Amino acid sequence: KQTARLLIKCPDKRGIVSAVTQFLHKNEANIIESNQYTTDPQDGRFFMRIEFESPHLPEAEATFREGFQPIAEQFDMSWDLTGAYDIKKTAIFVSKELHCLRELLLEWQSGDVITDIKLVVSNHEDCRELVESFNLPFYHIPANKNIRKQVEEQQLSLLEEYDIDLIVLARYMQILTPEFVAEQPFKIINIHHSFLPAFIGANPHKRAYERGVKLIGATSHYVTNDLDEGPIIEQDIMRVDHRDNVDDLKKMGRSIERSVLARAVKWHLEDRLIVHKNKTIVFK
Amino acid sequence: KQTARLLIKCPDKRGIVSAVTQFLHKNEANIIESNQYTTDPQDGRFFMRIEFESPHLPEAEATFREGFQPIAEQFDMSWDLTGAYDIKKTAIFVSKELHCLRELLLEWQSGDVITDIKLVVSNHEDCRELVESFNLPFYHIPANKNIRKQVEEQQLSLLEEYDIDLIVLARYMQILTPEFVAEQPFKIINIHHSFLPAFIGANPHKRAYERGVKLIGATSHYVTNDLDEGPIIEQDIMRVDHRDNVDDLKKMGRSIERSVLARAVKWHLEDRLIVHKNKTIVFK
Amino acid sequence: KQTARLLIKCPDKRGIVSAVTQFLHKNEANIIESNQYTTDPQDGRFFMRIEFESPHLPEAEATFREGFQPIAEQFDMSWDLTGAYDIKKTAIFVSKELHCLRELLLEWQSGDVITDIKLVVSNHEDCRELVESFNLPFYHIPANKNIRKQVEEQQLSLLEEYDIDLIVLARYMQILTPEFVAEQPFKIINIHHSFLPAFIGANPHKRAYERGVKLIGATSHYVTNDLDEGPIIEQDIMRVDHRDNVDDLKKMGRSIERSVLARAVKWHLEDRLIVHKNKTIVFK
Amino acid sequence: KQTARLLIKCPDKRGIVSAVTQFLHKNEANIIESNQYTTDPQDGRFFMRIEFESPHLPEAEATFREGFQPIAEQFDMSWDLTGAYDIKKTAIFVSKELHCLRELLLEWQSGDVITDIKLVVSNHEDCRELVESFNLPFYHIPANKNIRKQVEEQQLSLLEEYDIDLIVLARYMQILTPEFVAEQPFKIINIHHSFLPAFIGANPHKRAYERGVKLIGATSHYVTNDLDEGPIIEQDIMRVDHRDNVDDLKKMGRSIERSVLARAVKWHLEDRLIVHKNKTIVFK
Repeated sequence: KQTARLLIKCPDKRGIVSAVTQFLHKNEANIIESNQYTTDPQDGRFFMRIEFESPHLPEAEATFREGFQPIAEQFDMSWDLTGAYDIKKTAIFVSKELHCLRELLLEWQSGDVITDIKLVVSNHEDCRELVESFNLPFYHIPANKNIRKQVEEQQLSLLEEYDIDLIVLARYMQILTPEFVAEQPFKIINIHHSFLPAFIGANPHKRAYERGVKLIGATSHYVTNDLDEGPIIEQDIMRVDHRDNVDDLKKMGRSIERSVLARAVKWHLEDRLIVHKNKTIVFK
Repeated sequence: KQTARLLIKCPDKRGIVSAVTQFLHKNEANIIESNQYTTDPQDGRFFMRIEFESPHLPEAEATFREGFQPIAEQFDMSWDLTGAYDIKKTAIFVSKELHCLRELLLEWQSGDVITDIKLVVSNHEDCRELVESFNLPFYHIPANKNIRKQVEEQQLSLLEEYDIDLIVLARYMQILTPEFVAEQPFKIINIHHSFLPAFIGANPHKRAYERGVKLIGATSHYVTNDLDEGPIIEQDIMRVDHRDNVDDLKKMGRSIERSVLARAVKWHLEDRLIVHKNKTIVFK
Repeated sequence: KQTARLLIKCPDKRGIVSAVTQFLHKNEANIIESNQYTTDPQDGRFFMRIEFESPHLPEAEATFREGFQPIAEQFDMSWDLTGAYDIKKTAIFVSKELHCLRELLLEWQSGDVITDIKLVVSNHEDCRELVESFNLPFYHIPANKNIRKQVEEQQLSLLEEYDIDLIVLARYMQILTPEFVAEQPFKIINIHHSFLPAFIGANPHKRAYERGVKLIGATSHYVTNDLDEGPIIEQDIMRVDHRDNVDDLKKMGRSIERSVLARAVKWHLEDRLIVHKNKTIVFK
Repeated sequence: KQTARLLIKCPDKRGIVSAVTQFLHKNEANIIESNQYTTDPQDGRFFMRIEFESPHLPEAEATFREGFQPIAEQFDMSWDLTGAYDIKKTAIFVSKELHCLRELLLEWQSGDVITDIKLVVSNHEDCRELVESFNLPFYHIPANKNIRKQVEEQQLSLLEEYDIDLIVLARYMQILTPEFVAEQPFKIINIHHSFLPAFIGANPHKRAYERGVKLIGATSHYVTNDLDEGPIIEQDIMRVDHRDNVDDLKKMGRSIERSVLARAVKWHLEDRLIVHKNKTIVFK
């Protein structure tokens, strides 16, 4: 499709939308969807996502970029242009629990998530059969605390080899080093099995059971070096009651986790997410 | 506040957003919130709502309107400009069930719904005490099928006297004549006690019970001459089970009805609703 | 596991629970879960589901049944006893849309749905690869209005061959004859892609789009000879808005359909459903 | 009504349900609703709530109690019998935010919550007019940290004077002393304006905003001496997004708080709550 998305961040000032839309108009682009948000009409920060069609895309993308540069400079913008025709390349990391991986594979197969899944990496063999039944490359890289460095070197070399745009931690139970994370800023999406910040850390379902909460949840977030503290992308919950034991909570949790992660991944792939001060702006 | 809302409908063409935002920019307006929707990028219909601040409002409203006229003509727009400073005047019609009226009165009293409630009209005396405890004028106009014309004449004269912008049927159990409705196009909001189009018509809870549905709902819509067929503004549902009898459904229904109606009324008052072909566009 | 479920229907009278639980007590059964419901404490109809463990099961099942017979007669019960050790045998019927089939296969594979999927039947070839990747028998039986009788003969012979307990219509787009339905009373579960009774019949998403509803849903029900009118087992909804076109509604619908159907199937398999007067009692 | 509720806690053993229901049967009671729960079929703890009708109530309540005593002893039960005819007496404590108080007053007035509201106590004058418009006694008792003891003495004397069964903290922003709490074990229900245990303590909406969560919630719990750590009765959430500032979260929070608190209060008044190890069993 001849569709692209323009993402903009800059200080809020009068005239931004006017300048941007005039530029698109001159370039014969037709706006399909437009979203904007300002943290504060007085001296706030401005964010915009415009999805547009143009008969000149993708050929004229470079010309387009060049032409937009002066406007970007005038308003002090950081900006990005991504074509819907440039399908993003994804790697999925997983351990032993396969429900999130399965969901992503099915959504991908049915065309509900548009990406190019390049490989699946796991520290266990459990998902090999599933992955290979989808004709995808599977890499088994055993991992533990002590060999973290070597493991990540292998992983990074695969990410480079496949030119990966997005890493999805689909219940990957290993902690990544700051070095690894630093190489992929806001390119790693994790699913945490609690309604963060409640039950941050390990064993959230056990702790939820012990506290006697009446709702359990899941949280998808970008990975940063503060464990479970990265910008939240999506959350959802399910109602539980006194009859549900820890295993029931885990089972119900799986259902929330897979749908929450799938939504977060979809939004990332459609360039609907902007990170600002450890929060996400989601232009749905 | 020096805030206004510009609402636009027109055939979709390149350059609309550009022209509108350039105009606002020249008039030193600052866009706070902007929403747009097009039914189809090719020859579709375009809809837009822009909320903006301007230091010249409300004084310069007339100048503003005059200046915008040429753009409106160029793009064949139907459009409207409403100031947040022009508080809308509301009349509430109610019969014997008071839960929706109560919700509106409380939301109004707490400042969560911004309007000027001018009067409450009922065909029964049940709500007099409640209405008067809020120091609002109450009009008891008994009604039935046979005296519909006289009743509506009295009502219309009150609407005129108080210069009413919005009529809320907060469980008003009388059918309005086409003449009455025709005088208030898309100015009458009703709450229907079912998830329309399921159980359209009378006794929805009884019929929901008999059908054994597992969810019941409520629907707020603009009133047109097709009973229960007007443009839907908002709907919501609640889970029920085999243990709930007709009275339980009614009780649970009340809770959905009041919140659904309150949301619809709030969106109308904030000029977030555009009607197009018996549907609503809701710019939340 | 040494667990069984006792399901009871009878006229409501004093003493039923007392008699039943006394019997279980004498037989050294331990009640794990017990649910009851009466349509009316005065002359209503009484329903009960008791899940219990017994060290003598499954060996003593016949003795148990014999012992319970006098109580059943005393209270004029229709009743059933099913062991959790008797895994139910399921057939899945599907046409071209595979999302519900996929969900069931994954839930089955992960052990979240306990059944023995014996075969998948389709009037198309689309799901063959998927089914065979799970090592399940796939039967392609082309179907249309004119050959309905022959088609159903083939299907019935397969159902008999595999001794099937439950038929799941996982988006099977053919109408079954009254003869076929009559042979499987309350053993066929269908998923309908609307919030019944709204948009009963064909093309619900198109009609939902045209009506401008703000929520779409799905309904799982037992199949009877009144098309889309059988006892509703489960329903759920999702919020939509003016931006969602018919295809978006279908896509979102798929997500509701698969979870609603999976829940209904699970409840049936756990003997949590009792049909009474075209409604279901769901003992969750 | 000639209805009563029997609440039972005891070690799980075979024969409890049988003994209890036989007793009720002999006493010509008709079971309307029965719920049970066991923490573990092996050596767990057993909980039961039976709602029943009897033509001999309320007159024969004492005889009933006496007759049940041997069964209670046999199974080592702690138990309680409460008649629906003994309407519970409630005191509401409130500070400056009135939305929860308003909800309770309206639900009470419409008969959706069955209790006898005896008085409203506040450390501010804001709600006087509202309370007195419902013809209820209002007590203004100014409060602060330094005079906590005197304040609570006044309050306790009022609770005694009115023979109060339930204290609802409907956004009462003062901390109660351990002495006060100790006098009302599991008789004080609070509403906390977050999804506990997330944002435990002060300013939850500000902290939710800063963390960038996508859902906010509210929690109703029994008050114990561990601040915000008492047994959770009910929780609910609402979806928020990046556009919602702290004030928006507070506004949306009010809507969740009032419905969550109203449900918790209703369940307490209907004797549907049993506390066990800092958790609640809710027999809905």
